[in-house]
Amino acid sequence: MATQQVLIDGQWQASKGTETFQATNPANKQPLPETFPVSPWSEIEAALQAAERAARTVRNWPAERFAKFLEAYATKIEQRTDDICRIANLETGLPVEPRLKTAELPRTINQIRQSAAAARDGSWRVPTIDPKINLRSCFGPIGPVIVFGPNNFPFAYNGIAGGDFASAVAAGNPVIGKAHSSHPGTTKILAELAHAAAQETEMPPGFVQLIYRTSHKDGTRMVSHHCTAAIGYTGARTTGLVLKEAADRVGKPIYVELSSINPVFFLSGAIAERRQALVDDFTASCLMATGQFCTNPGLVILPEGPDSEALIKVIAEKFNAAPVGTLLSGGVESNLRAAIVAIRQAGADLVCGDTSPDASRFCHANTLLRVKADAFLADAEKFQTEAFGNSSLFVTTKNVDQMAAIIDKLEGNLTGSIYSHTGGQDDDAYDRLAPLLRQHVGRLLNDKMPTGVAVSAAMNHGGPFPATGHPGFTAVGVPAAIHRFAMLQSYDNVRHHRLPPCLQNQNPTGKQWRLIDGQWTQGDAPSA
Amino acid sequence: MATQQVLIDGQWQASKGTETFQATNPANKQPLPETFPVSPWSEIEAALQAAERAARTVRNWPAERFAKFLEAYATKIEQRTDDICRIANLETGLPVEPRLKTAELPRTINQIRQSAAAARDGSWRVPTIDPKINLRSCFGPIGPVIVFGPNNFPFAYNGIAGGDFASAVAAGNPVIGKAHSSHPGTTKILAELAHAAAQETEMPPGFVQLIYRTSHKDGTRMVSHHCTAAIGYTGARTTGLVLKEAADRVGKPIYVELSSINPVFFLSGAIAERRQALVDDFTASCLMATGQFCTNPGLVILPEGPDSEALIKVIAEKFNAAPVGTLLSGGVESNLRAAIVAIRQAGADLVCGDTSPDASRFCHANTLLRVKADAFLADAEKFQTEAFGNSSLFVTTKNVDQMAAIIDKLEGNLTGSIYSHTGGQDDDAYDRLAPLLRQHVGRLLNDKMPTGVAVSAAMNHGGPFPATGHPGFTAVGVPAAIHRFAMLQSYDNVRHHRLPPCLQNQNPTGKQWRLIDGQWTQGDAPSA
Repeated sequence: MATQQVLIDGQWQASKGTETFQATNPANKQPLPETFPVSPWSEIEAALQAAERAARTVRNWPAERFAKFLEAYATKIEQRTDDICRIANLETGLPVEPRLKTAELPRTINQIRQSAAAARDGSWRVPTIDPKINLRSCFGPIGPVIVFGPNNFPFAYNGIAGGDFASAVAAGNPVIGKAHSSHPGTTKILAELAHAAAQETEMPPGFVQLIYRTSHKDGTRMVSHHCTAAIGYTGARTTGLVLKEAADRVGKPIYVELSSINPVFFLSGAIAERRQALVDDFTASCLMATGQFCTNPGLVILPEGPDSEALIKVIAEKFNAAPVGTLLSGGVESNLRAAIVAIRQAGADLVCGDTSPDASRFCHANTLLRVKADAFLADAEKFQTEAFGNSSLFVTTKNVDQMAAIIDKLEGNLTGSIYSHTGGQDDDAYDRLAPLLRQHVGRLLNDKMPTGVAVSAAMNHGGPFPATGHPGFTAVGVPAAIHRFAMLQSYDNVRHHRLPPCLQNQNPTGKQWRLIDGQWTQGDAPSA
Repeated sequence: MATQQVLIDGQWQASKGTETFQATNPANKQPLPETFPVSPWSEIEAALQAAERAARTVRNWPAERFAKFLEAYATKIEQRTDDICRIANLETGLPVEPRLKTAELPRTINQIRQSAAAARDGSWRVPTIDPKINLRSCFGPIGPVIVFGPNNFPFAYNGIAGGDFASAVAAGNPVIGKAHSSHPGTTKILAELAHAAAQETEMPPGFVQLIYRTSHKDGTRMVSHHCTAAIGYTGARTTGLVLKEAADRVGKPIYVELSSINPVFFLSGAIAERRQALVDDFTASCLMATGQFCTNPGLVILPEGPDSEALIKVIAEKFNAAPVGTLLSGGVESNLRAAIVAIRQAGADLVCGDTSPDASRFCHANTLLRVKADAFLADAEKFQTEAFGNSSLFVTTKNVDQMAAIIDKLEGNLTGSIYSHTGGQDDDAYDRLAPLLRQHVGRLLNDKMPTGVAVSAAMNHGGPFPATGHPGFTAVGVPAAIHRFAMLQSYDNVRHHRLPPCLQNQNPTGKQWRLIDGQWTQGDAPSA
């Protein structure tokens, strides 16, 4: 079978690369038939130049154009649902139902459509007008964006279809998608649909491009190239940090999502009040998708004592009884095993799992570890090793002071949850812990597990380092997510007819929200 | 005279450092009497720990507290105007009138008061509410902020009084100010007033702290310390890049403002129409404050031909006739001379200046250089060497194509200006150049010089690298400038009474703007 083509400058074309790779079916460890190219530098540079040309072409296009492209793309994805889910299942082991077909693909389509709506309503631009001195500002497109998608969301974070892609396009930027090597076939179909939608809506060549893999060296060259304006990266911490360093050195905004263990606090009143609900919540959240979520609850902090022991015991029973899910790849499997080894070596005890129940596929037994707070505090960094997958670490604490001390040792996380008694018995503890936890996490939850990321304007899927590289940005939720791929542009004394429509005195749609003299309004700005 | 004290954890105290330094009066090259300490690491760490304690103390304080502190501070500065301007004049050579007393100090006080108002109205928080799913988000304080002030604005960018300081405090963050070594005495008085205001308004110890100098190694240690949440730095590129690398490596947001040469385009119709106005605009802007502005017009691009020659000739005459201002320091003088040497060595011709007219003070003759576009394009990086001070480079171009080619070679800048004919004769050229220039600059001007940065919500004092480290942020203009020192915080299913007031259903002031279900409103949110 011929090596698959890359999408460069408006054309599917044979890669000039000589190296190739194949994806592996994690459910049987067999290679999948298609081969994909590793792009050489010349090809990457051609894509970067084409993206820059496309950026110039579309720079002053009305938002309607980007919205139409996104909507055409969303429809095409919808129409190919079955094909897309079939190949994604083969490449990732994630079940077609309900995960791929009923949950992730509709979410992905919804994200694209929300981004189209945000492009159209212009909310992300935050038009700001100071009429007295004819000074005006708004966010504008930043330029070519590269998106590196992760392994665990073949659609919703895909480099050519996910939230970063949709946000970048909504701001009017061309995107070069970099497929994740574990699901290149899925990405290929999505890119075909993106390309078809781009042609149908007359986007310029180079607006949507796809490569499958690069050498590590070319990856760093790519993110620091003069044509690159910004980068989105979700994935492994080591690779992400290398790309971040390369981009940071030349001042390119790079949004990385690197790791998160999502601490969950079970306060004593909540355990006493509703132990079974906590067990059910936690088990479902931790084992869903075999635990392969960036918001998976990987660390649970709870008081020591008989109630907690009973809770742990029931969770262990459920872990033992639950089917063992397939992991995304051999790499995920070996990383999970290595992380569990590291946490056990640091002193955690095994509650259940940590076996290899099925050598015919990538998997690891549902695993629960536990450690006392004293030990955790003595080696907090090691105990925060991310065990990406169906594993979690429980930390038993003597008192609320120890819970607070644990928070002080936490790295930045995407989320933090606190379960407390509904009648107020835990309120003192909550009031002590929540303000501390708040500064370590992007999203603070009450009585709820962190998995399940609503696509809403009020979402923050972000958090302090190393959860992400900057705690002021979210990867999910428009219009905020779009700001990542925008630059602030001020217009000083610019003649009125030369201003972008959103900054002219007349409200361009009669509905766009603008900040005029410190007040949000959908009205017109006064003439000077 | 005893070495001046540092302000750590609410106390003015003798530094434990053994090294000291003195400021120099640039008008006579004589050292000023006071000696200031270089703080050792133990002292810096004490400040960081104190800042962290202060951050925890004030975390849930109402905005009113920070506003009151800022306002008390502004009043104290106003009351000490004469003392502050006197010492700043001695340390910087900047004239008391009009610069220090009528321009910069009132601007600084205005910035602090605007920041207080922004803290109070809460606009920077962007409260966003999705009532149906009880998901809410807002910006919140990020934690301890370190501010490194530059040499050229002893008040408006001062580490303990300038825009970064005021923005960080408005968001509810403690600040450690790092004085610039060229005006430590000015900074000391400001810090005394800040401390007095902090005591008067009952801010905790460690909320406002001051150190004067650190070793380079301790500077990088400081910005990457676990207690540090964010950093503002305005100053020299080399130092800034070292600090940026250290902060980036550990994911601390660092906002650097490094260099900008602020290209100005004189289109042919504008020169023909109003040559004298252009001459006057440019000369005043380029020589104001001896050219020591980050928005100084250091690069002028204009068509070749007799009109431009006449314009250059008159500017040279004005440069020769104008008094030669005093430069801020020996470092500024030697850097300016070195930059002029580099630009001349690259092939620029001298139009006027580049002499040393007065050895008794730090200064350099008002200098104009020129080069043809072909030569500029062949070595564009060298010709963009920032000559910080009273110097500018003119580039003559054969046609608009060459102007466009120059823009393609430009580094990121804070500003870019285009002067064009008022009757539309330059409109084709403008329409070609403006979209290109737009992507290289934070603020695009028409028929106006870039010096003079209005403190307005619509200002963007920022721009693509290396003007700053991220093109999405501004250092001037509230509420946007405050976002730099904020983190995004989402609340998911959090019980209503535990939400910060700005996210509860009832509008906390009846006037706060909030984004509810995609609409900006000052009303209440519906109950779920």
